[in-house]
Amino acid sequence: VQTVADLTEAELIDRIRQKLPPRPEWLLVDIGDDAAVVTPARNRLEVLTVDAIVDGVHVDRRFTPAAAIGYRAVAVNLSDLAAMGAEPRLALLSLGLPADVTLEDFDSLVGAAASVAARHQLHLVGGNLTRTPGPLVVDVTAAGSVKARQVLTRSGARPGDELYLTGTIGAAAAGLEMLRENVRRADLRRADLLGPPDPPTCVDRYLYPEPRLRAGLLLGRNRAATACIDLSDGLGDAVRRLAESSGVGAVVDASVLPIDPEADRWFGGRGTDPVGAAISRGDDYELLFTVRPRRRGALKAVSRHGGTPLTRIGVCTENRALLLRRDGSDQPLPAGYDHFR
Amino acid sequence: VQTVADLTEAELIDRIRQKLPPRPEWLLVDIGDDAAVVTPARNRLEVLTVDAIVDGVHVDRRFTPAAAIGYRAVAVNLSDLAAMGAEPRLALLSLGLPADVTLEDFDSLVGAAASVAARHQLHLVGGNLTRTPGPLVVDVTAAGSVKARQVLTRSGARPGDELYLTGTIGAAAAGLEMLRENVRRADLRRADLLGPPDPPTCVDRYLYPEPRLRAGLLLGRNRAATACIDLSDGLGDAVRRLAESSGVGAVVDASVLPIDPEADRWFGGRGTDPVGAAISRGDDYELLFTVRPRRRGALKAVSRHGGTPLTRIGVCTENRALLLRRDGSDQPLPAGYDHFR
Repeated sequence: VQTVADLTEAELIDRIRQKLPPRPEWLLVDIGDDAAVVTPARNRLEVLTVDAIVDGVHVDRRFTPAAAIGYRAVAVNLSDLAAMGAEPRLALLSLGLPADVTLEDFDSLVGAAASVAARHQLHLVGGNLTRTPGPLVVDVTAAGSVKARQVLTRSGARPGDELYLTGTIGAAAAGLEMLRENVRRADLRRADLLGPPDPPTCVDRYLYPEPRLRAGLLLGRNRAATACIDLSDGLGDAVRRLAESSGVGAVVDASVLPIDPEADRWFGGRGTDPVGAAISRGDDYELLFTVRPRRRGALKAVSRHGGTPLTRIGVCTENRALLLRRDGSDQPLPAGYDHFR
Repeated sequence: VQTVADLTEAELIDRIRQKLPPRPEWLLVDIGDDAAVVTPARNRLEVLTVDAIVDGVHVDRRFTPAAAIGYRAVAVNLSDLAAMGAEPRLALLSLGLPADVTLEDFDSLVGAAASVAARHQLHLVGGNLTRTPGPLVVDVTAAGSVKARQVLTRSGARPGDELYLTGTIGAAAAGLEMLRENVRRADLRRADLLGPPDPPTCVDRYLYPEPRLRAGLLLGRNRAATACIDLSDGLGDAVRRLAESSGVGAVVDASVLPIDPEADRWFGGRGTDPVGAAISRGDDYELLFTVRPRRRGALKAVSRHGGTPLTRIGVCTENRALLLRRDGSDQPLPAGYDHFR
């Protein structure tokens, strides 16, 4: 079996180049020079983010196909752009490749990264390849654009603002458990991702999280949200970060949480509290945002065209405590998952 | 001894933030949100590049101080911007931290990265921290700006254009050998870098390469150069890449190569051909560029204000061969160093 160690850097870069769509007009110099040269978007701010996927920390190559790793590295950055209300524009891909990565896996990883990027108008403009004696590392920097008055940050929430969530939660955590326990192995080799599976299963939700770009864009455009954050490390973590940045507390209502039905059954059948799992585990990549009650009407268009249902799950409070209201009593909101520790 | 594993991600981010200069006006949202938000530079193109430093591949923590690793991760990206004629603007820092990195090393690494960035008006606007079971990885994405007609690329050289080099070569390769052989250990703990040591030794040149930003900027502004590239993987590699992108060949004159005198003595004293070492080994981060003979006059200002001497080392040819002219006969130009293999 051929591995990446059998090819030169130039040959691998060529394989990446073949997977890219035609160069957009604003991209003047791309892969193959010392740096990429682009024309900035007119009259817009630029939004920049970077996220790394490390084998053994964020994913596990033993049960995560290479396509899902490449997909995820791009999708988590798209999710950050979504949380800022930004439109995707360009990305740089930095790959740390151990010698045991097969050429087939390299092609799948790069192909899925290129495919999800292209689906969201994110152009790969450059990157870096290096070998590494350690685990596979996929580091993606992404840039988007947004109009000045439409930027979403974490810090605009005020007491009384209502907390909303896109989509459903818990599915990715359940999917990860299923994968760890070797469920549905046959599903895992889909290298070509033309769109999200419909309806997605928990395993799909873990492997191929859908960044909520349309919803984030509409929230910014309609000036519907006062603050926004994505759920990379779980709802508990996102509520805490948004509340800290905004200087508020929050009460989340357990009874209305949009827990994915398959995840609910999975956790319930194994004696795990579905509410606790859905709050404290990560990888969902939904958006958490806050809305002033009198701007609630502006959410209609987001509900209709945002590509995902919205659920009101709680409220921001003057009291800085973070609480989960459940069966009539308030308890501390479970914390999120700390990828770093 | 405290290591990075004893702190939370938030505490480490705080330590980074403390090392940053005040936020420039164009930086609207920085570290601490889902992404950074910046106002693009007016009427300029944006230049983007990414480079990773991996322990065991690009550096060796056994004899490279943490400060030099942080410095290098930023400097290699600055060198790419220099090669495009761009002014540095912003960077994102993605760190993969093994649990054994001491807090002292973390502070040195981040401090040196922040210091060399600030010295060149490069603002750290965001980043990512992750733990890793593998080697230390420092991935930096940098963005600069350049006027449309002042971009330098690799592809503009024509037969008859003369090849020039900034500074001297061979020093970094000699410095690396000295470090490997345990020379000058006492010099290695300089964590505070206010400027390049004067005069720099070979060890300094390896540990703290000076990106040729001023020279690159002036070459672009004066429209003196037809093509430009930096020397990350050696002169042989740079000549090959520039020649391939431009569709030309080249003859390099061994007798005029600006080999660092200390490196010349080091290699000479050990039975290594200094010319071969200076061409085939990497890490010099000088600029190689081409000049149309009738534009030679435009180099005066670059010589005077570029902060580094310029040396004419050869000429581009219609014949696509890459040759080294030495003692009256032509031989194939030695190849550069392939970091990937």
